[in-house]
Amino acid sequence: MSNCSIKIDKLPTVRRLPAYLTILRDLFVKGEQYVSSSYLAEKMFVESILVRKDLELTRVTGTPRVGYSIEELIRSIEEFLGCSDNLDAVLVGAGQFGASLLGNRGLRSFGLRVVAAFDKDSRKIRTTVHGVPVFDIDRLEELLKRLQVPIAILCVPSMDAQKITDVLVASGIRGIWNFTSENLAVPEHVVTQREDLASGLAVLCAKLVRSRPLQH
Amino acid sequence: MSNCSIKIDKLPTVRRLPAYLTILRDLFVKGEQYVSSSYLAEKMFVESILVRKDLELTRVTGTPRVGYSIEELIRSIEEFLGCSDNLDAVLVGAGQFGASLLGNRGLRSFGLRVVAAFDKDSRKIRTTVHGVPVFDIDRLEELLKRLQVPIAILCVPSMDAQKITDVLVASGIRGIWNFTSENLAVPEHVVTQREDLASGLAVLCAKLVRSRPLQH
Repeated sequence: MSNCSIKIDKLPTVRRLPAYLTILRDLFVKGEQYVSSSYLAEKMFVESILVRKDLELTRVTGTPRVGYSIEELIRSIEEFLGCSDNLDAVLVGAGQFGASLLGNRGLRSFGLRVVAAFDKDSRKIRTTVHGVPVFDIDRLEELLKRLQVPIAILCVPSMDAQKITDVLVASGIRGIWNFTSENLAVPEHVVTQREDLASGLAVLCAKLVRSRPLQH
Repeated sequence: MSNCSIKIDKLPTVRRLPAYLTILRDLFVKGEQYVSSSYLAEKMFVESILVRKDLELTRVTGTPRVGYSIEELIRSIEEFLGCSDNLDAVLVGAGQFGASLLGNRGLRSFGLRVVAAFDKDSRKIRTTVHGVPVFDIDRLEELLKRLQVPIAILCVPSMDAQKITDVLVASGIRGIWNFTSENLAVPEHVVTQREDLASGLAVLCAKLVRSRPLQH
């Protein structure tokens, strides 16, 4: 089962924290000092009450009529996420999707730094993709033991996912960001986070079915 | 604010529905008739109680010691998501990430059918990407009015996001799946769903910080 101790009902809040961080950093750069929950609610397209609930996780308390200290919120969210420093990772599977992650600005501004990519396609090996060197996947275990990065981003075909995961675990990887459709079996000291693109499409569908059609 | 009538606290459940659907269809193909919440919990890496809570949304009730009817669950989830039929869409922005969505099997098996892609890069126009024809983005309004698809997948650079959104809205698009970092302004009859890749990374980080390190 889950090997993480955050309560599952808090995960939607954790998912929203990067978006808060983007808004807060933007305000900070503009020289603002305080922000209200209603401003954040408007920017996040959620209700104010949900913003206040989300921010409880940061333990920063707002002052009535003044709002929340932007600097305090930024520091606290960064601390909560545990990744205000560099977040070093390797990418396994530098296909079209994997390659697009290497060029993703949002991930870079969040602190993600991919130090190496791995692929089995000989046309990709020894090239760089968005500045990241691509190595032969056969060298995964050898290089991981040398690089000592905590995180692997898994973008291989689903049929290879568990086999590669076993190599990642044996090489000391502690967290796997899983973009395959497989539920990975990992030992208790390794955490995984699976991304399912269809889940966002499902939410869009559910909203569409329930939305009011345009009145002519 | 939100222009959808599903309660926000149900959205995490909706996000999980496609994953249930994948597991259930797999069982159905194997000839199974009933499934227990504990089996689904194990496959989904969540607690049984959360599975039972999630499935309340489908209004299918389980029978003690027998479980849930797989066929009923599939039908009900498909109905809830409103997209058991073809889900026609256009893709705007056929860069590396957008192109990878066109090749994504999970989205296709969910029912997504992208009928046309649009880009401003003259090297891409009049080619096909994963079988989908790419058109000049200048023809977006003209072709959308002819195609009459409900959904647009937005993968353009963030600086162009609102401008393109205005064209999509004027052309009759009802739902926008937004992969840009912009919060889009849309009229009330249009729904949006923004995907933020960094949010999954945030969850992974939070799990990592709180996980037990390996004991040597």
